[in-house]
Amino acid sequence: MHPYRSHNCAELRLSDKGQQVRLSGWVHRKRDHGQLLFVDLRDSFGITQCVVDVSSPLFEKLENTRVESVITVTGDVVIRTAETINAALPTGEIEVRVRELEIQSRAEVLPLQVNSDEDAGEDTRLRYRYLDLRREKMVKKLKLRSGVISSLRRRMIEQDFMEIQTPILTASSPEGARDFLVPSRIHPGKFYALPQAPQMFKQLLMVGGVDRYFQVAPCFRDEDSRADRSPGEFYQLDFEMSYVTQDDVFNAIEPVLHGVFEEFADGREVSPYPFARIPYAEAMAKYGSDKPDLRNPIIINDVTEAFRGSSFGIFARAIEGGNVVRAIPAPGTAGNPRSFFDKFNDWARKEGAAGLGYIIYDKEGVPKGPIAKNLDEDRLAQIKEIAGLENGDAVFFACDKELAAAKFAGHVRNKLGTDLELLDKGVFKFCWIVDFPMFELDEDTGKIDFSHNPFSMPQGGMDALENQDPLTINAYQYDIVCNGIELSSGAIRNHRPDIMYKAFEVAGYSNTDVEESFGGMLSAFKFGAPPHGGSAPGVDRMVMMLADEPNIREVIAFPMNGKAEDPLMQAPAEVDEDRLRELHIKLDLPLEDTEEN
Amino acid sequence: MHPYRSHNCAELRLSDKGQQVRLSGWVHRKRDHGQLLFVDLRDSFGITQCVVDVSSPLFEKLENTRVESVITVTGDVVIRTAETINAALPTGEIEVRVRELEIQSRAEVLPLQVNSDEDAGEDTRLRYRYLDLRREKMVKKLKLRSGVISSLRRRMIEQDFMEIQTPILTASSPEGARDFLVPSRIHPGKFYALPQAPQMFKQLLMVGGVDRYFQVAPCFRDEDSRADRSPGEFYQLDFEMSYVTQDDVFNAIEPVLHGVFEEFADGREVSPYPFARIPYAEAMAKYGSDKPDLRNPIIINDVTEAFRGSSFGIFARAIEGGNVVRAIPAPGTAGNPRSFFDKFNDWARKEGAAGLGYIIYDKEGVPKGPIAKNLDEDRLAQIKEIAGLENGDAVFFACDKELAAAKFAGHVRNKLGTDLELLDKGVFKFCWIVDFPMFELDEDTGKIDFSHNPFSMPQGGMDALENQDPLTINAYQYDIVCNGIELSSGAIRNHRPDIMYKAFEVAGYSNTDVEESFGGMLSAFKFGAPPHGGSAPGVDRMVMMLADEPNIREVIAFPMNGKAEDPLMQAPAEVDEDRLRELHIKLDLPLEDTEEN
Repeated sequence: MHPYRSHNCAELRLSDKGQQVRLSGWVHRKRDHGQLLFVDLRDSFGITQCVVDVSSPLFEKLENTRVESVITVTGDVVIRTAETINAALPTGEIEVRVRELEIQSRAEVLPLQVNSDEDAGEDTRLRYRYLDLRREKMVKKLKLRSGVISSLRRRMIEQDFMEIQTPILTASSPEGARDFLVPSRIHPGKFYALPQAPQMFKQLLMVGGVDRYFQVAPCFRDEDSRADRSPGEFYQLDFEMSYVTQDDVFNAIEPVLHGVFEEFADGREVSPYPFARIPYAEAMAKYGSDKPDLRNPIIINDVTEAFRGSSFGIFARAIEGGNVVRAIPAPGTAGNPRSFFDKFNDWARKEGAAGLGYIIYDKEGVPKGPIAKNLDEDRLAQIKEIAGLENGDAVFFACDKELAAAKFAGHVRNKLGTDLELLDKGVFKFCWIVDFPMFELDEDTGKIDFSHNPFSMPQGGMDALENQDPLTINAYQYDIVCNGIELSSGAIRNHRPDIMYKAFEVAGYSNTDVEESFGGMLSAFKFGAPPHGGSAPGVDRMVMMLADEPNIREVIAFPMNGKAEDPLMQAPAEVDEDRLRELHIKLDLPLEDTEEN
Repeated sequence: MHPYRSHNCAELRLSDKGQQVRLSGWVHRKRDHGQLLFVDLRDSFGITQCVVDVSSPLFEKLENTRVESVITVTGDVVIRTAETINAALPTGEIEVRVRELEIQSRAEVLPLQVNSDEDAGEDTRLRYRYLDLRREKMVKKLKLRSGVISSLRRRMIEQDFMEIQTPILTASSPEGARDFLVPSRIHPGKFYALPQAPQMFKQLLMVGGVDRYFQVAPCFRDEDSRADRSPGEFYQLDFEMSYVTQDDVFNAIEPVLHGVFEEFADGREVSPYPFARIPYAEAMAKYGSDKPDLRNPIIINDVTEAFRGSSFGIFARAIEGGNVVRAIPAPGTAGNPRSFFDKFNDWARKEGAAGLGYIIYDKEGVPKGPIAKNLDEDRLAQIKEIAGLENGDAVFFACDKELAAAKFAGHVRNKLGTDLELLDKGVFKFCWIVDFPMFELDEDTGKIDFSHNPFSMPQGGMDALENQDPLTINAYQYDIVCNGIELSSGAIRNHRPDIMYKAFEVAGYSNTDVEESFGGMLSAFKFGAPPHGGSAPGVDRMVMMLADEPNIREVIAFPMNGKAEDPLMQAPAEVDEDRLRELHIKLDLPLEDTEEN
C-alpha cells in the first residue's frame, strides 16, 4: 500500500465498504464521544470521518494530536448508521475505522483557526498565510484564480494568439506610474526597471511580425495600495494584434471575456456579445461616467431647455452663464419622507455641490417640492417626459458646466443605484466605451493637450489632424467596462511616425521633444510597422469580480499588505552593506534614521 | 472589404482563381523583370507573390518602396503559368495581380537583412530585435517556445496540477546565487529581492494544503552569463506535490516531459518512460558524471585489480597509494595512427591530468602500446574483458583517487563521444539520477558537510541519522538529465523539524544556527506540514534542446546580451537623482567614475 494514501479524503463511498484504505491529511476537527473519538480528516479534495474506539491504544495518541496536525490513518471503510449519515459530505455515508495511525507532522497551538470562518485580522492571516490558505474559502479562491487564468490562456490560444514572455528586467519608462528600480551590479550607476506593462514590447512584437500576441503578464507599479490595487505586482491579460481595426480587436476578445465569465459565473448572467459599444460622449451624457455600471437602470437626461428662462432663478441664471441641467430619476421614491430628499441634499453638499434640487411626481403625477413650485405646468410636464419619469418617481438635478454636471449626475446615479438597491447582483454587464476625444482644452492655459493616450491613432488619421478642429477629433481608443469597473484601456496604436509627429505638434510638442522621449519606438516604426492594436484586461480584477471580493488581496496567494510588506517572508528587509557596495549604491536615509551615523 | 486583408499571405490557392482579394504584409523581396515587377508579400503566416505590370501607375510606386515596408495590396488572384509555379510555397500556384496599393509604413535602409540568413552579429540583432524576429528562423523558434510552454501547462493541468502565481517582489534569501535587489520607497533602507526560484513559496503552498502546484515561473539570478544561461531572468516549470514518494514525483512528471518532447521532436526519438533511474554512485562509475549523456555508448569500468601489483609501475604504485584505474573504451580506434593517441595524451595534460595511458587491441586482438608492453597476457585479457572491448578497439585509462578518476574518465568519455561521433543526434535520452549522498567528507577539514541540498529528506529518516554512518546515508534527491544536460534537481523535502535539526547537527550546526537561517520555513513546518516533493525543469533549456540551439538567447524573444544589457530598450540606464532620493539610496560609484564629484 502507498505509504501515504490509497484514496484522497473525498473519494470513499458506500461501494468501498469493507475495503482497507489509507488516508492522509490534516486533523480538521475532533469530537470525543466518550466511547468513540471522531476525527474529520481533511485534504485539498475533501473530508472523511475517521473513528477510533476508546479500547484502541490509538485513542490516546489521536486525542493528544492537535487539530491541523498531519496524520496518516489506515483502516477499514464501514457504513455509518442511518442517523449519523452526513448528507452534506460526499463521503458522508461511510467512515474509516482506524487501525494504524502515523503522525506525519504535529501542529502547535494555532494562531488562526482553519476550521472556522472567524476573522483573524489581515496581519495574522498574511503572517500565517499557509494556515489561512487551508480555509475552505481561500481554497475556493485559489482554484477560481487558477481556473480563470488557465481558461483565459486556452481561449486566447483558440483565437490564434501566441503567448510570448517579455522581459521583467527592463528599462525605466519616462511616464505613467512609478517604476520599481533594480540596481545593476555589472554596470555601476545604472538601473533596470520592472515593467509597468509590456506595452513597448508588445508593440515591438507587432513590428517584429508576430500576428497575435498575448501574455498573462506580471506588471509592477510602485504605487500606494488600494482595495482594488495590490502594492507592487499585478497581472494583466496583455494582448496585441496586427492588421486590425477596432472592431477586429473587439471581435477577438469578446468571446474570450464572455467565455471565461460564463464558465465561472456560477449562475450569474453574462452580457451576450457583441457587447454594447457606447461612445464616450453618450456615456458621459447618459451615465455621467466613462465607466458606467449598466446594472443600474437609471438614465440621465438633459433638461436644460426646460429650465431656461424659467422662474426657478438659480438654474435659469446658471444656464444663462453657460451651465447645463441634468436630470437623474429616482424611481419609485415619491412616497419617501422629506428626510430622504434632505439627506441627499446634505450628501451633495459634502461632495462639494451647492445642493441637490429635486421634483417629486406623486402617485397621481402631481409635481411637488421647492423647485416644482417655481415652474409652470408645461415645464414640469416637459421634465417628466424628457427624464422618462412615471407617477411615483422623483428626479434630482445637477446644474453645472457640462463636464462637471455630467460627472456629478453620474455620482448621484451611482448613489441612487446603491441606496435604492437597483443593481441586479446576479449579472455581469459588459460594454465598450469608444470614441474618446483625442485632445482636450486645458481650461486654465487655453492650450490643447492629449486627453488620454498620445499613442492612439486619431480617427481620420493625418487628414483629420491637418483639417479638423482638434477638439472634434476622436481617437481609436476604447475601454472595456464591466459592472462599472474598468477592466482595461486599449487602442488602435498610431504606427505612423508622420502622424505621430503631427499629433504631438497639435498638442504643442516639437519633433525633437517626441524623439527625445519616444525615440526607441519611433525608430522601430521606421522599418515597416503594421497597423496594430490591443488591450490588457486586468486579471486580478476579473478574478475579484468572479469571486465577488472587493479586496484584491483575497484573490492572490501571497499578497503584500497595505504597507507593501510581506509579513510572512519579511519583505522588504535590510541587506548587508557589502551587498549594497557590490551594487554601487549606499543608503540615503531620512534624517531621523541617520542620526547615529 | 476589410481595410487590411481578406486573406493572410499563406491562404490563397488555385481554387481562389478570379477572386478579388486584399493582402497586407511586409515586402519580403522584389524582382524587377522589366515588364513586370514581382513582390513577395510576407506576413507571419507565409508569402504570396504579387505582380504589377509596367503599364500600371503602381509600378513606380512599388518599385520605390523598400523591402520590409508594410503595404496593402488589392487585386485579383490569377493562376501562374506552369513554368513559374513555385512548389515550395503553399501559395505557389497563384499570384495576385495588384490593382490597388496602399503603403502602410515605409522602411528605411535596413541594418540587417530579413530575407537572408546572413549573420548580422549579436549586437545588431539585439538592437534591432524587431527586425531579427521577422526572420523565418526566429519565427520558428518563437512559435516553438510558445508551443512548448503551452503544451507543458496543458499537460500539467491534465495531471491535476494547479497553477499559482507566487510573488516576484519578495525577500532576499541567504543562500544560493546572487539576488537582484529592489529598493523600497515606503520602507527606507529596506529592499525587496527578486526570487531565484519560488522554492519557499511552493513548499509553503504544500503546507497551505495545495495538493499539486505548478507554475511556469520567472526566476532571477544576478550571475554572469553563459551560453546556456541568460543573465538575469529565466523560466522554470516549477512544481511540487503533497503526500508523495520519489516515485510518485517521477510518475507525475515523466508523461509531461515525454509528451512535450514527443510533441515537438520533429522526427527525433524520445526515451519511453519510465525513464532509467540511475543511482548517483553507478552514474559516477559507469559514466563518470552525474549528468550522463546516454546517447554516448561508452561505458566506463573499473580495472584497478587488473593493474594491482602489475609491472606497469606507475599505476601499480598509485593503486598502492589508494588510487583506482578506470577504463574508457575507444571503440574501433585501433587502426588510428599513433598521433591520434598522442593528441589525447596532450589534451589530457592540458586538462591537468598526468597523461592518458591506453592499450590498443588490434584487428587480431593483439594488445599494443607502451602500457601493453608492461602487462602480462592474463592482465591484458582481463582488461579487455572488464572493459568490454572487441578486437579493433582501444582503451584509455584514468588513474587517480576514486572521485577524481571517475570525473576524468567521464571527461574522456565525453570527448571520445564527440570526437568519434558516437552520439546519436536524432534522439532525446532521459534518465533520473537518484540516491545522491546526503553528506560528504571535507577532505581538508575532515568534517562532514551536506553534499547537496540540506533540505532533502535523508533516506531512512531519523533512524538513519541516529544510527548510520552519515557518509552512507543517501538523500531523496534526484536530477532529471537529458542528453547530458541537467534539466533540474529535485527532492522529497524534509518536512520534519526534528529530522531537520538532527541533519544539521550531523553537519555540525546547532539548533540556533538552523533557526537563524531558516526560521520562516521551520515555523511553517510546526503547524502541520505534509510530506512533499517536487522539481523544476528549466523551460529555456528544454526549448534550446528542442530547437537544437546551443545559445539560450536564440530562444528568448528579447534577451539581454552577454553583458546583461538590453541594447534595444537601453537597459540598464542611469536614473534621475530625485528618483534615487525617493528610494533612499545614492550612488556609490567606483573611484574613476566619481572623480568629478
